[in-house]
Amino acid sequence: MRDVEEQLALLLRGVTHVESENELRMRLKEGKRLVVKAGFDPTSADLHLGHTVLMSKMRTFQELGHKVVFVVGDFTAMIGDPTGKSATRPRLTREQVLEHAETYTRQAFKVLDREATEVRYNSEWLGPMTAADTVTLAAKYTVARMLERDDFTKRFQAQKPISVHELLYPLFQGYDSVALQCDIELGGSDQLFNLLVGRALMKDYGLRPQMVMTTPLLEGTDARVENGKLVGDKMSKSLGNYVGVDEAPNDVYGKLMRVTDEAMWRYYELLSRVDNEALAALKGGHPMVAKKALARELTTRFHGDEAATAAQAHFEQQHQRGEVPDDIESVSVVVDDGATGLALIKVLVAAGLAKSGGDAKRLVGQKAVAVDGEVVTDGQRALARGGVHVVRCGRQYRKVTLA
Amino acid sequence: MRDVEEQLALLLRGVTHVESENELRMRLKEGKRLVVKAGFDPTSADLHLGHTVLMSKMRTFQELGHKVVFVVGDFTAMIGDPTGKSATRPRLTREQVLEHAETYTRQAFKVLDREATEVRYNSEWLGPMTAADTVTLAAKYTVARMLERDDFTKRFQAQKPISVHELLYPLFQGYDSVALQCDIELGGSDQLFNLLVGRALMKDYGLRPQMVMTTPLLEGTDARVENGKLVGDKMSKSLGNYVGVDEAPNDVYGKLMRVTDEAMWRYYELLSRVDNEALAALKGGHPMVAKKALARELTTRFHGDEAATAAQAHFEQQHQRGEVPDDIESVSVVVDDGATGLALIKVLVAAGLAKSGGDAKRLVGQKAVAVDGEVVTDGQRALARGGVHVVRCGRQYRKVTLA
Repeated sequence: MRDVEEQLALLLRGVTHVESENELRMRLKEGKRLVVKAGFDPTSADLHLGHTVLMSKMRTFQELGHKVVFVVGDFTAMIGDPTGKSATRPRLTREQVLEHAETYTRQAFKVLDREATEVRYNSEWLGPMTAADTVTLAAKYTVARMLERDDFTKRFQAQKPISVHELLYPLFQGYDSVALQCDIELGGSDQLFNLLVGRALMKDYGLRPQMVMTTPLLEGTDARVENGKLVGDKMSKSLGNYVGVDEAPNDVYGKLMRVTDEAMWRYYELLSRVDNEALAALKGGHPMVAKKALARELTTRFHGDEAATAAQAHFEQQHQRGEVPDDIESVSVVVDDGATGLALIKVLVAAGLAKSGGDAKRLVGQKAVAVDGEVVTDGQRALARGGVHVVRCGRQYRKVTLA
Repeated sequence: MRDVEEQLALLLRGVTHVESENELRMRLKEGKRLVVKAGFDPTSADLHLGHTVLMSKMRTFQELGHKVVFVVGDFTAMIGDPTGKSATRPRLTREQVLEHAETYTRQAFKVLDREATEVRYNSEWLGPMTAADTVTLAAKYTVARMLERDDFTKRFQAQKPISVHELLYPLFQGYDSVALQCDIELGGSDQLFNLLVGRALMKDYGLRPQMVMTTPLLEGTDARVENGKLVGDKMSKSLGNYVGVDEAPNDVYGKLMRVTDEAMWRYYELLSRVDNEALAALKGGHPMVAKKALARELTTRFHGDEAATAAQAHFEQQHQRGEVPDDIESVSVVVDDGATGLALIKVLVAAGLAKSGGDAKRLVGQKAVAVDGEVVTDGQRALARGGVHVVRCGRQYRKVTLA
């Protein structure tokens, strides 16, 4: 067993907030198995890597011997949106909730250790609760404190309606912690307020208050470095910058291989089960080695070792063993009228890589075109007469001589 | 049966707000028996005339053939103040609630027609309500609208805590109207907001929304006229300016006979069952006749006809048929030292009306002392040598000659 400081460093890796580090150190020192809670909406969403950041942290707790309680928030799902205003929150039946939870956990258990995970539905304790119990619960928090939640504050100040029942949801979620008497609750960074409500409520109900820990949102596969900082949109399906848990092994592996080195280290920090010592070793080596190891680890996580091996082989064949295939077609393009060069889009058409000038323009716009290994986004860039260039358009290559 | 406009005039007499007059006119025209709701806290308080303003209005509805539902708010009483901050709202047992309700209704039925009154406990429908039902109810109202309630607005602006459960209470109270499907709710003017919540909720639940009607707070027995307007504190036990429902007949009658004429007309408007026509006739006559009729009516209401007759006889003997009794004792008081007069407190001691100077001072302070029928509040006021005065101290009289 690792010593407490080592465990602590692993648990705190990449987290946005912990309340508090000292408490966590103390409880780890007590040596008891911690009850780790995290709540999930019973949606039928396809999960992507972004969703698994939280689960990866839960997994780390499991690796260290702690117990994870995966709470399905079916209570509110079965109420739906009582204002009837939200199309995204329809009232779900018990059957629908179970079906969604099944879809969700099937994906989640690719990350979590099923044996060390207890799945609970919060309707179990919130369902039998009476109106009087709800009053008692609601009395524990003031309206002003509740309105301190970031989204409430903004809506209240913008005079956008907040229904009274919305103030109850953080309390119900907090009551989950009371019912489960958990030691620590994990959540996304946007959940910090709700997690702290749970901490406060446990105190109110005479229980040892839970610790809270939040994980960040994951940057998408298109994240780049600016001024030494990783920037870019958060991973999301609608932006297309995601790696899906259920995607084909070749896609998982390939997408991960194409992220920047900085994004790779971020993914290591938040997703990998590689410990801090091994991570430091990887950072000392060649980034390509580390990137392959990460792609391999995550592909294995979602599809098993055999599929990951195949995906790696596929990738190496397609993308690595020579960026330029051996059997590349040579083409000679005539620069007419005594000009010194020819615009790239004209080259693409002349070399048979685009059907028309418009098609060529579109391909350049999609960043599908590279000259000598460098993506070119300016279709008007001239290639000089007499030059010889390897021009790639999508997966097609030509060795182009400008005559 | 009176015509609709006559009924309307009687129902609207003295009310502070009605929503709306036209609706009420329409519903009276429909000729159906209206269900009239009013809610009461199950306190053990001794009622005074101020409490009976609302009940008197309920009685008027009963006189016109409508059905009154007297709702005992036992639901919240059985929860108590869940914050534990209020000593005035302890958690009550079912037995205590029933006991308090019994005390309350025993007094209320001196005003209300018991036969036309249905007593209901709101725990009947709020007790079985679940947390999920509460969420559905809470979704009907926004936080901002709720904070428009006058006392909430003030507390919120002053950054005084408002617990989340406090926002639920107006909704529960409003739900009482949904459960009872009442036509109109009555309440004190401070209840207007809550009554309107009930009106809005009924609409939300697809019911014909209730009308609402509020009655004012009653001025105390010490109300006076300033600039043609009745001014003074509201009737309250702590201010001592009240007439208690359970007070002795002589006290009820006597206290009412001592109010100003303007207060009397106000009491007529808000408490008497005398109709508008008869009231106009009384206003044309001598105020003393009207005042006796009012004192008689209310004493009869609380103690029955026989007791009221006796109280009237007692009052007339004591206070009217000669302010000064026949067999008054004469006393001669010596003004010494060549002074021209003697301070009232010295006169009181010398005449045997007070035991000591201190005692005399106290009696003057209590306004118990009158000289020639006029209450004197300045104990140092000198009575002139050679004068003859009728001095009253409480119920004791002396004919005092200053020699």
